Amino acid sequence: MHRLLITGAAGGIGQIMRRKLAPLAKILRLSDISDMGVAAENEELVICDLGDKHAVMELLRDCDAIVHLGGMSGEAPYSQILNANITGSLNLFEAARAHGMPRILLASSQHTVGFYRQDDYLETSAPMRPDGLYGLSKCFSELMAQMYFDKFGQETAIVRIGSCFETPRDHRMLATWLSFDDFVSLTERVFSVPKLGCPIIWGVSNNDTLWWDNKSANFLGWKPKDNSGDYRASILANVPRPDPGSVSALFQGGDFTQKPIVHDL
Amino acid sequence: MHRLLITGAAGGIGQIMRRKLAPLAKILRLSDISDMGVAAENEELVICDLGDKHAVMELLRDCDAIVHLGGMSGEAPYSQILNANITGSLNLFEAARAHGMPRILLASSQHTVGFYRQDDYLETSAPMRPDGLYGLSKCFSELMAQMYFDKFGQETAIVRIGSCFETPRDHRMLATWLSFDDFVSLTERVFSVPKLGCPIIWGVSNNDTLWWDNKSANFLGWKPKDNSGDYRASILANVPRPDPGSVSALFQGGDFTQKPIVHDL
Amino acid sequence: MHRLLITGAAGGIGQIMRRKLAPLAKILRLSDISDMGVAAENEELVICDLGDKHAVMELLRDCDAIVHLGGMSGEAPYSQILNANITGSLNLFEAARAHGMPRILLASSQHTVGFYRQDDYLETSAPMRPDGLYGLSKCFSELMAQMYFDKFGQETAIVRIGSCFETPRDHRMLATWLSFDDFVSLTERVFSVPKLGCPIIWGVSNNDTLWWDNKSANFLGWKPKDNSGDYRASILANVPRPDPGSVSALFQGGDFTQKPIVHDL
Amino acid sequence: MHRLLITGAAGGIGQIMRRKLAPLAKILRLSDISDMGVAAENEELVICDLGDKHAVMELLRDCDAIVHLGGMSGEAPYSQILNANITGSLNLFEAARAHGMPRILLASSQHTVGFYRQDDYLETSAPMRPDGLYGLSKCFSELMAQMYFDKFGQETAIVRIGSCFETPRDHRMLATWLSFDDFVSLTERVFSVPKLGCPIIWGVSNNDTLWWDNKSANFLGWKPKDNSGDYRASILANVPRPDPGSVSALFQGGDFTQKPIVHDL
Amino acid sequence: MHRLLITGAAGGIGQIMRRKLAPLAKILRLSDISDMGVAAENEELVICDLGDKHAVMELLRDCDAIVHLGGMSGEAPYSQILNANITGSLNLFEAARAHGMPRILLASSQHTVGFYRQDDYLETSAPMRPDGLYGLSKCFSELMAQMYFDKFGQETAIVRIGSCFETPRDHRMLATWLSFDDFVSLTERVFSVPKLGCPIIWGVSNNDTLWWDNKSANFLGWKPKDNSGDYRASILANVPRPDPGSVSALFQGGDFTQKPIVHDL
Amino acid sequence: MHRLLITGAAGGIGQIMRRKLAPLAKILRLSDISDMGVAAENEELVICDLGDKHAVMELLRDCDAIVHLGGMSGEAPYSQILNANITGSLNLFEAARAHGMPRILLASSQHTVGFYRQDDYLETSAPMRPDGLYGLSKCFSELMAQMYFDKFGQETAIVRIGSCFETPRDHRMLATWLSFDDFVSLTERVFSVPKLGCPIIWGVSNNDTLWWDNKSANFLGWKPKDNSGDYRASILANVPRPDPGSVSALFQGGDFTQKPIVHDL
Repeated sequence: MHRLLITGAAGGIGQIMRRKLAPLAKILRLSDISDMGVAAENEELVICDLGDKHAVMELLRDCDAIVHLGGMSGEAPYSQILNANITGSLNLFEAARAHGMPRILLASSQHTVGFYRQDDYLETSAPMRPDGLYGLSKCFSELMAQMYFDKFGQETAIVRIGSCFETPRDHRMLATWLSFDDFVSLTERVFSVPKLGCPIIWGVSNNDTLWWDNKSANFLGWKPKDNSGDYRASILANVPRPDPGSVSALFQGGDFTQKPIVHDL
Repeated sequence: MHRLLITGAAGGIGQIMRRKLAPLAKILRLSDISDMGVAAENEELVICDLGDKHAVMELLRDCDAIVHLGGMSGEAPYSQILNANITGSLNLFEAARAHGMPRILLASSQHTVGFYRQDDYLETSAPMRPDGLYGLSKCFSELMAQMYFDKFGQETAIVRIGSCFETPRDHRMLATWLSFDDFVSLTERVFSVPKLGCPIIWGVSNNDTLWWDNKSANFLGWKPKDNSGDYRASILANVPRPDPGSVSALFQGGDFTQKPIVHDL
Repeated sequence: MHRLLITGAAGGIGQIMRRKLAPLAKILRLSDISDMGVAAENEELVICDLGDKHAVMELLRDCDAIVHLGGMSGEAPYSQILNANITGSLNLFEAARAHGMPRILLASSQHTVGFYRQDDYLETSAPMRPDGLYGLSKCFSELMAQMYFDKFGQETAIVRIGSCFETPRDHRMLATWLSFDDFVSLTERVFSVPKLGCPIIWGVSNNDTLWWDNKSANFLGWKPKDNSGDYRASILANVPRPDPGSVSALFQGGDFTQKPIVHDL
Repeated sequence: MHRLLITGAAGGIGQIMRRKLAPLAKILRLSDISDMGVAAENEELVICDLGDKHAVMELLRDCDAIVHLGGMSGEAPYSQILNANITGSLNLFEAARAHGMPRILLASSQHTVGFYRQDDYLETSAPMRPDGLYGLSKCFSELMAQMYFDKFGQETAIVRIGSCFETPRDHRMLATWLSFDDFVSLTERVFSVPKLGCPIIWGVSNNDTLWWDNKSANFLGWKPKDNSGDYRASILANVPRPDPGSVSALFQGGDFTQKPIVHDL
Repeated sequence: MHRLLITGAAGGIGQIMRRKLAPLAKILRLSDISDMGVAAENEELVICDLGDKHAVMELLRDCDAIVHLGGMSGEAPYSQILNANITGSLNLFEAARAHGMPRILLASSQHTVGFYRQDDYLETSAPMRPDGLYGLSKCFSELMAQMYFDKFGQETAIVRIGSCFETPRDHRMLATWLSFDDFVSLTERVFSVPKLGCPIIWGVSNNDTLWWDNKSANFLGWKPKDNSGDYRASILANVPRPDPGSVSALFQGGDFTQKPIVHDL
Repeated sequence: MHRLLITGAAGGIGQIMRRKLAPLAKILRLSDISDMGVAAENEELVICDLGDKHAVMELLRDCDAIVHLGGMSGEAPYSQILNANITGSLNLFEAARAHGMPRILLASSQHTVGFYRQDDYLETSAPMRPDGLYGLSKCFSELMAQMYFDKFGQETAIVRIGSCFETPRDHRMLATWLSFDDFVSLTERVFSVPKLGCPIIWGVSNNDTLWWDNKSANFLGWKPKDNSGDYRASILANVPRPDPGSVSALFQGGDFTQKPIVHDL
């Protein structure tokens, strides 16, 4: 690839991917609404509000591929969700359409299905059950991706990221952990497979504990290598076991299911 | 019921329901952004922009039940969809939550699944495939209803209305037609069943031609009586048969699948 | 048929079937642990405790067909369930095996699945979820029937009777009602179909409200004719609507789900 | 339609359809390998061996629609099956391709699935289980139709005819009967629906006894009206009940499952 | 855990688990109807007939967790099955309810599904098909566990043990083998997962030959490590291959399907 | 095994199997229509046209097992497909029936399902969608195998071979590659399992990229070891990526979907 755009490059995952995805393209264009520091030689830095249609249109110019990590990445008041995630998605897909429809990896979230129980085992076709405004906005983005695929042929990999951290941090992450390296290998597959389409992919490592079935994405040839099970003993020893009746033990979305709705508009 | 609110009362379906649902409640509160004429004795008329949070909050005060027909009912520029359908839905559900969570009948649309082929036979659990911004906004409303049910217990009947007219008008409506009387009998069932939950219901009459399976809503005891098949001969005689390769013959959403996206914000 | 045995002939359904099934056989053998009155010309009356192996062995001698309505027909202390329903079932199937394996219609119950929600729509293959010791004993009988079929070829129609009364009596029975006539027509089909096998059949009339899918029994050619919907208006007018949070509105088994377990052995 | 071709016009179903389908087209072209008597005013009679590639090519010239009843319609030696049904199918589809791909109604057979048990309830997607060389040849024709649709867009309605007679004749036909009128109404739907595709349709009336689920063909709007149940009493009274262990009671294909394979080539 | 109860501690599996599960708890309470030898320092030995309600009530006092291996573990006369497995189960669950509902691992059996064919691939939701009185009693225990969960919230892991031996012994055990170590690791997961619910788990190692799908238990994070395939060459060399028409080659339950029913009550 | 017959022994796979399967039997009987060179000590060479009924009848005499690789192994004119694959299959199964029904491994092909998309994930029960006359003839052979099993008990392993080469050669083969060694281990399992039945098996290695689900064949205990993923980097570097809109990127059957139909009879 010539130029790969990473949005949300100042965020938690974004900072890692800025480093790890560098080998995939000659030029990395990085965007965020926050400061991203100093550009390396192969980098272009663009401060950009995703809710600004014209800025996003400029942002995508001359990009071959997009890793869209930008927008609010957790529960937030409606005004922020609306600007960055809802209108922001439309801005992104409209800009992509205007610029030759480069392939997109869309960072969606397990909070699109957060109200399923932890002993439910989900295929990607399971009806969505968002656990808040954030989850709802990610459902919206996913369905917009599907609509742009059906209507215009835009290819997007919808990646429902579980918990993308250095290591799993609590009992729930034994199921939801996605290692950085597995995210990188998934990104490689998404941009090298001849035909992508518009698949939903559970962004989760090869964990012993498993809530999600990725068989519908087997055509990608992605095999995550890391396993949260390697950290189980440590978590059992150091992290208090959640009460069996608590949302942390009951729902896939954990405490997101209990966060308040803030309608500030 | 004491007071039933019908939003969108000046619209095509709204005008009919204003008359036909009158026997269900002592008082009809009717709202629209457009003029609704003169109030009858049992009616309260409220001009209301669904995108106005405070207005909607007032609108729902003291209502026992809501038939939500309001908002844009076809493809429209993003600014209008956003105001009336997206923010409008949040306004509605927040107001319902503040006012004791009266049961809601939410008018959704077949355009949530408009990109399925006409020879697909869908259960309500089929993944959504919206055919435009309008369909996408209806997906958003449906998922918001589900979220308010999971999070707060708000009961909503999600009715995916096909084509609600006096009679079916073309070949596609042989499958999608919902008669006014069948809509009325469905409304009666929604508000009289002891426990509603948050079901998705295909809003379609007892047509010979069938794309949608309502078995997941069988617990309601709703039996539509009208049949588009009674009008088949007339349609075959009077309406040109669409080209087999046209979107009118291919997709459930018909020509909505070809309407442009207008991003005017 | 020459001789048809009806067990439980003094019970609520038994008394009706004694009269209505008479045309199906030259001789009716009727049994119960309670008094059954005076025998008509075509009748043989046998007082019999189903928990008595030898008595049951005699009871089945020379019978061509069995309608097994006997045993406890509602929640009861364990000692009674054990004697009549659990050991009683083994006595029945062993006697049938000794006497040429006449075809059996086994009266099972919806309480084998009483813990499903009322908005669940069940096929006969759904995992059982009994709502008490009674339901559990019926699960046991059903599985015993299946085992005698797999092991010895004994044919049994497992009929999960909903609510078999003259008319439906409350909101729940709008879904569960089985009319007497429909039970009779089902019995006729069970004993006239060339090959029966060991099907599970939902014993329910052609009600508008429907929780159960009988498609796996379509090969029988049974078409129930009565419809609880004819009584809906009357029930809505005369029977208080159950609270949406009550077990009467939530679970298919209604208040059986709340009955205590009595272990008296 | 201008010219409708009916092959196999001298056969049992063919003779009836010659009369009943006449109103559908200005001209009926009728073909068979046997004598078809005298042509009526609107008829063209063509003696044709379906195994003769050139003859079939001529036969389809200038036809708008084809009802393909021709070929062996029951178990037969391999040489005959091969000529009329296997090579005959290829001749037909190649000729259709050469002549503008007129829509085809292909008479297939329940013997494509004859080895299922009578208490199996089949959707059209069930794997095929032919019960002899005849059934196997019909599988071949069905798959060829699918291949011509996938490869070239040729539309074909694959109708798995059960037992098409004036009335049902035995216990098995209570499930398999297709009345002549229902076949006619199906034919009308096949040729008037805007987009046909390549559906498999169970060719069976609205019988109480049902082995097959036609939901995947609901988009056609075909509602069979006749019911074998109207003849049940008569069959129970006059036709000996088959032994429960016999193939007539066990398998959907009945005694076809026991017919010998004759390899005469 | 403070005190772990193992019932059936004198049995084949019990003796192994007595040793291998010791690290899981401070105190092991061990029960059996047979002699268990001398108590180690951390052990409490209780001779107990599971059919004795009062004895079982005492047995469970002050236990944090239960591994229920007790009762008849193979086909047996009805009186023994009834006492230890049927009434025994009720005694156990009633005692658990009285003592704060400690988590239970219930040793069930593959003989709950013994009449499936060896080329059937089963999910845990497959309808039960017991192969004798023993299997039937295990179905009863499983459904009782489900009922106590639905009614009272009692958590139970239902483990359908295949063949739990040092090594696999014949062709059938290539599919059914559960190693001791894998049983131990499963037990650890059952008692450490925050929320257990009432899952059915196939108790089987990571064998190449597989009849059962454990995906519904993936949330436990249990990964069996042993593989019967390591013993395949040895079994092929030393154990006669069963006749393809024999029950050993046909049914999952093997020769249990042919054992006689002994009704001795 | 005493004598193993390999048909198609001069073909690409046949030559390899001639060497690799030698340890499985005392005598290898090898057949082809082409020259097979010189017989080794344990070999019998038979030149045989599979379309010749009498030759095939002789060919199978005294064989214990058959690996049927013979016939056209790619798209070909109808006359050749008909002789070797269609009539050839009947010749083979009739000969097997006459000679005690030795177990057969039937080399079928992924071209039975070639018109599925590459992002479809198929179980063996998916309806067939052949991509040409060759694929169609393999469907015919598969269904004939099923029919001989249902009718006569003939056991056949239907192996849908993907791409059986030394190494994968292009992007599509990352999904379809079957290594020689994995084919050998599958053959061993097919001939050593006590009961085979008539399963369909995807003949594919343990590739990271996966279009096909082999769970229905898990009872065989076959675990392929090789992985096309080991060659991914090399293919990405050396083989041009197919255009996303090309049949090579869209369909499982690749360019077979575009090959012409040649009807030369």
